[in-house]
Formats: sequence, structure tokens, C-alpha cells
Amino acid sequence: MIAKKVYAITLAVLAGILSVAFTQQPVDSQLEIKSVLMKQQDAWNKGDIDGYMAGYWKSDSLLFTSGGNIQRGWQATYEKYKKSYDTKAKMGKLDFSNLHVNLLSSESAWVFGYWELTREKDNPSGVFTLIVRKFKDGWKIIHDHTSAEQIQKSKGKNQK
Amino acid sequence: MIAKKVYAITLAVLAGILSVAFTQQPVDSQLEIKSVLMKQQDAWNKGDIDGYMAGYWKSDSLLFTSGGNIQRGWQATYEKYKKSYDTKAKMGKLDFSNLHVNLLSSESAWVFGYWELTREKDNPSGVFTLIVRKFKDGWKIIHDHTSAEQIQKSKGKNQK
Repeated sequence: MIAKKVYAITLAVLAGILSVAFTQQPVDSQLEIKSVLMKQQDAWNKGDIDGYMAGYWKSDSLLFTSGGNIQRGWQATYEKYKKSYDTKAKMGKLDFSNLHVNLLSSESAWVFGYWELTREKDNPSGVFTLIVRKFKDGWKIIHDHTSAEQIQKSKGKNQK
Repeated sequence: MIAKKVYAITLAVLAGILSVAFTQQPVDSQLEIKSVLMKQQDAWNKGDIDGYMAGYWKSDSLLFTSGGNIQRGWQATYEKYKKSYDTKAKMGKLDFSNLHVNLLSSESAWVFGYWELTREKDNPSGVFTLIVRKFKDGWKIIHDHTSAEQIQKSKGKNQK
């Protein structure tokens, strides 16, 4: 009788552990992925392009596209960022928002979100789609498709 | 001795079948996904928006973005297409090219490719990122992020 009870309790505990392990995993992955993006945002806002680029897969197969331009490989993407944002004024303040992380497997996901740069002269903004994969050193962006809104409002313009 | 041989042959045949099944599957998925896009292209070029839309996941969760606009849901996407492309002249001839299908699991993938519309007055073109998932009725696009090149060449302009 006691043996049966012990057996039943052990089974229940095991089932509990397994259910927590399996239901927690997607939540953890989503938080981990969001954390990669928050680290990118923080690095950007410190003027740290290298820190920002740490979120991307350091591979020749990284594919980055923004505004009709395509960069193939981490190095080309890095150089494009270094060139386009060579001053703190051009970098401005970056905000990611409305991040939706959608897991596709235990080690892959896609993310849709909004970006905005607050700068002295303008506030460009838009959306992005990311493909992320889990590597030994964590989640990395393997593809970034960024779009800007077509009408960029210049500050001070169109104000009555 | 004969029994051992039969056993070895059976094992070899089984291993062969398994290896074909497993190595063929990604190739099949890639072909299936490309076929969905080719069917979209063919439908478009017949002026058949309904046929084109069959490639998209018929769900309120379909997420479509192009040129800074966002459509949420299949119905909204369908209506936007119907409104933007209400004549054969506006639809023009659609060409998808350089399609790269990247499997993320046995039932999910992302696709990067180029699009071009050949029309009487202009040739808009650009790139797209798709997220596709395998459903009971085949592969469907669950997210489409389309960008146009920023400088759209009007025919006849800028010619010396």
C-alpha cells in the first residue's frame, strides 16, 4: 500500500517537473530573444555599434536588407552600419517596440517589431522582421529585413 | 549463414530507405515551397488575385507588410490587393527570382527573394522575406515582409 503511494507520488512529481520544463521552455526562449534585442538597443544608445552587432550571427551567411540595400555577411553589415552611423547625432536614440516573438521550433523563431530613431533633425521609424536561431552562445539574428515608413517626418516641417 | 545474409541485406535495404526518406524530405519541402510561389506568380499573371491569395494562410493572424503599410489577417490583405490592383494594367507581369528557401524545421521555413512588376508605365521591384509553415493542406505564407527599391525607375525617364 505504501509502495503504491510512493510510486503514485513519484509519478506525480515527475509529471509536474516535465510539464514545467516543457511549458517554461517557449517562455524562456521568448524572453531570451527579447533580451538580445534589448541589449542591441542599449548598446546603440551608448553609441556602441560593436555591442549592437553582437546580436547578429557572425557569419558570411547573415542576410541584412534595409531600404532596398542588401548586405551579405556580418562584416559587410558591420561596415555599412559603421559608415552610415559615424556620429552620435546620426545614431540618435533607438527604440524597439511591440516586439512579437513567434517560435518556429525549439531553436528558431521569427520576430516582428517596430523601430524608431529619435534624432535632432528627424524621427525615422518603421518595422522589421527578424529570423533568429539558437546557437551554442545563444540566440542570434540570422536575417534582418528592415523597412522605413515611406514618409519621414522632418521635425518642424508641416507644423501649422 | 543464409539467415545472417538475409538479415544483413534487410538491414541495408532499411537503412537505404531511411536515408532516402530523411535526405529527400528537405529537398521536397524546398520544391513544395517554391511551387507555392510559382503558383502565386502564375495566378497573378492571369489577373487572378484569388489564386494568388491561395498561397497565404487564411487566418486573422496572417501578417503582411509592404511599403510601411501593415495588414493584419488574410481578409485585410486580400482587400488591400483587390483595391491596389483593380486593373490588369496595374497588376502587370510579376516575376519572382533568386528564391532562397531556408528550412528551420520539418514544418517551417523562411524565404528570401526578389520581385519585379513589368508594367506599361514603370517597373517597380524589390525584395521580400516570407515565413512559411506546413499545414494539412500544404505550405502557406504566414508572414510577408515586402520592400520596394526606393528609387523606382519610370520607363523613358533618365534616358539620355
